[in-house]
Amino acid sequence: MVLKVEESAVHSLPPPTIPASTPLGYESDCLTISAFVNRPALGILPPENFPDKLIESLLSIAPSGMTRVQTMACGSCSNENAFKTMFIWYRNKERGYAIPSEQEVGTCMINQSPGCPDLSILSFMGAFHGRTLGCLATTHSKVIHKLDIPSFDWPIAPFPKLQYPLEEFVRENAQEEARCLEEAEDLIVKWRQKGKPVAGIVIEPIQAEGGDNHASPDFFIKLRNIARKHGCAFHVDEVQTGGGTTGKFWAHEHWGLDDPADVVSFSKKLLTGGYYHRDELQPDKPYRIFNTWMGDPSKNLFLSELLNVIRRENLLEEVMRSGKTLLQGLYALQVRPSPFLSSHD
Amino acid sequence: MVLKVEESAVHSLPPPTIPASTPLGYESDCLTISAFVNRPALGILPPENFPDKLIESLLSIAPSGMTRVQTMACGSCSNENAFKTMFIWYRNKERGYAIPSEQEVGTCMINQSPGCPDLSILSFMGAFHGRTLGCLATTHSKVIHKLDIPSFDWPIAPFPKLQYPLEEFVRENAQEEARCLEEAEDLIVKWRQKGKPVAGIVIEPIQAEGGDNHASPDFFIKLRNIARKHGCAFHVDEVQTGGGTTGKFWAHEHWGLDDPADVVSFSKKLLTGGYYHRDELQPDKPYRIFNTWMGDPSKNLFLSELLNVIRRENLLEEVMRSGKTLLQGLYALQVRPSPFLSSHD
Repeated sequence: MVLKVEESAVHSLPPPTIPASTPLGYESDCLTISAFVNRPALGILPPENFPDKLIESLLSIAPSGMTRVQTMACGSCSNENAFKTMFIWYRNKERGYAIPSEQEVGTCMINQSPGCPDLSILSFMGAFHGRTLGCLATTHSKVIHKLDIPSFDWPIAPFPKLQYPLEEFVRENAQEEARCLEEAEDLIVKWRQKGKPVAGIVIEPIQAEGGDNHASPDFFIKLRNIARKHGCAFHVDEVQTGGGTTGKFWAHEHWGLDDPADVVSFSKKLLTGGYYHRDELQPDKPYRIFNTWMGDPSKNLFLSELLNVIRRENLLEEVMRSGKTLLQGLYALQVRPSPFLSSHD
Repeated sequence: MVLKVEESAVHSLPPPTIPASTPLGYESDCLTISAFVNRPALGILPPENFPDKLIESLLSIAPSGMTRVQTMACGSCSNENAFKTMFIWYRNKERGYAIPSEQEVGTCMINQSPGCPDLSILSFMGAFHGRTLGCLATTHSKVIHKLDIPSFDWPIAPFPKLQYPLEEFVRENAQEEARCLEEAEDLIVKWRQKGKPVAGIVIEPIQAEGGDNHASPDFFIKLRNIARKHGCAFHVDEVQTGGGTTGKFWAHEHWGLDDPADVVSFSKKLLTGGYYHRDELQPDKPYRIFNTWMGDPSKNLFLSELLNVIRRENLLEEVMRSGKTLLQGLYALQVRPSPFLSSHD
């Protein structure tokens, strides 16, 4: 077998070689599949064509207002790093973009404030944002995820519990959403008062793991405004909802906002993890958001092809059409129940 | 193009399909590369041959005493889930393997103790264990990793600072290692007293990111015994050191122990992330350790081939041989300095 080293990789190989992730080095003649086996450390040594590949793939479907994308390997890492991006942005605002104090630099190495500040992320009851320790502090869907794992004292707001059919409970549902928004805003004020300011709000456009829970566009629009009013970043977690199953590529597009969020994270159907963010949330220095692999460029190649298929076959329209048919069928069953179905609370 | 769905995948497709990670479903006829694009959710729907592939690859290089392996996508996720495994194990011991109390079940959903207990992981100054929030609480190598990110109040012991050449500082280095061990043990006692018991100790066999810091086998053997004495799990992080660069496949093999650790995590050169653990640390229920992808079976295929190369070409012996040559060259330079080199503190 013959090694095919990408020329671009050789040309840009820096003196300190990529961090411990090239198992045979570039000299082995035993593996033809170097592009996969010698997977680049994307943050240091991206393939020469990687920016173009990002433009073709992830940036071609960027949510409104989002100009930057950071790839990651999975949904949990995406949300963890999205949270870090919000914390860094929030602290930079707090310190007026000055360089960190000696006290901050000294304390951060030993996990103490102010270097490791007591910031928090506001999440919603029933939410699922992943299972690594940072994500898990914002996940509240099932006991099996949470039990026995240390967590952060971060605020948790109620997610609206809507009553159906929606048209019969217009007033009740509006009241329920108003109650949840008020509680969310109260928590932001309370956590600021107790010295753990909310740097960001994280929410799913549809709670999936927590039980297929929906809220109106009006709820999300008002929540986005609460975030803005209190200087918190607004993070929409589309790990479950992104990729077209709602009839739009991103579920938050149903809200109709030009500036729907500060951060949108993704994974699963997108084949690569990662998150988009607004320009303003770009960290002030390189290496503040980093890991060895930062995703996998081979997954981006698959995503480009996947997007071609979705476009060529008008799959979003197809989802809209078949979704309507399914919904009409369910409504019909509701009026004229099938003898094969029974109701279930 | 023709879709090639693996028959095994179709046969075992469960009614609730894999969680939101199959972008076109199994019916699309547009992608030939289904094995990659329709990447399985390994925890639910592994390829039929996956256990055999694990035996060929990861389990064939399992550290002494380790019978189980859990794959993950990257080094940070590996360590995060290794920590979770230790927390679950520790709490199960504490509650005498009884079912969790109602209070535990209730409090865990809102991030509060006892459901989310105040447990800690003891780490070492200079350590690098990753950059997600749990890992980052055990990382203490560079300010750029830590600044502005909230953390846990977990204990941090000093890592030995040895003086070189080793044979000239035998007594001083032994004292230095004894000091660090004493401090580690003191911290375990202190953190238990302040209600944040140490569930696990995490350490690298060689600190890499923190500055190429070494300690003697005796240090690690004694630390492993301190962990055992205090009922803490002992986690050896081989993300940087695993894969053969020390002349043994795992750096901890240089300690010569039959039972070197409770958990050994890996990533980077292994091409897939993950961790081994002893039988005793197997979580009591499925889904306690889980994410959508749990690694990527395609990486295991590459690893099998990589291991074949390492064996066929006796690369571990080669590393030993060339390492000795390099070291002798460095010693020679020390005695007879080159005019092209200057000393540097």
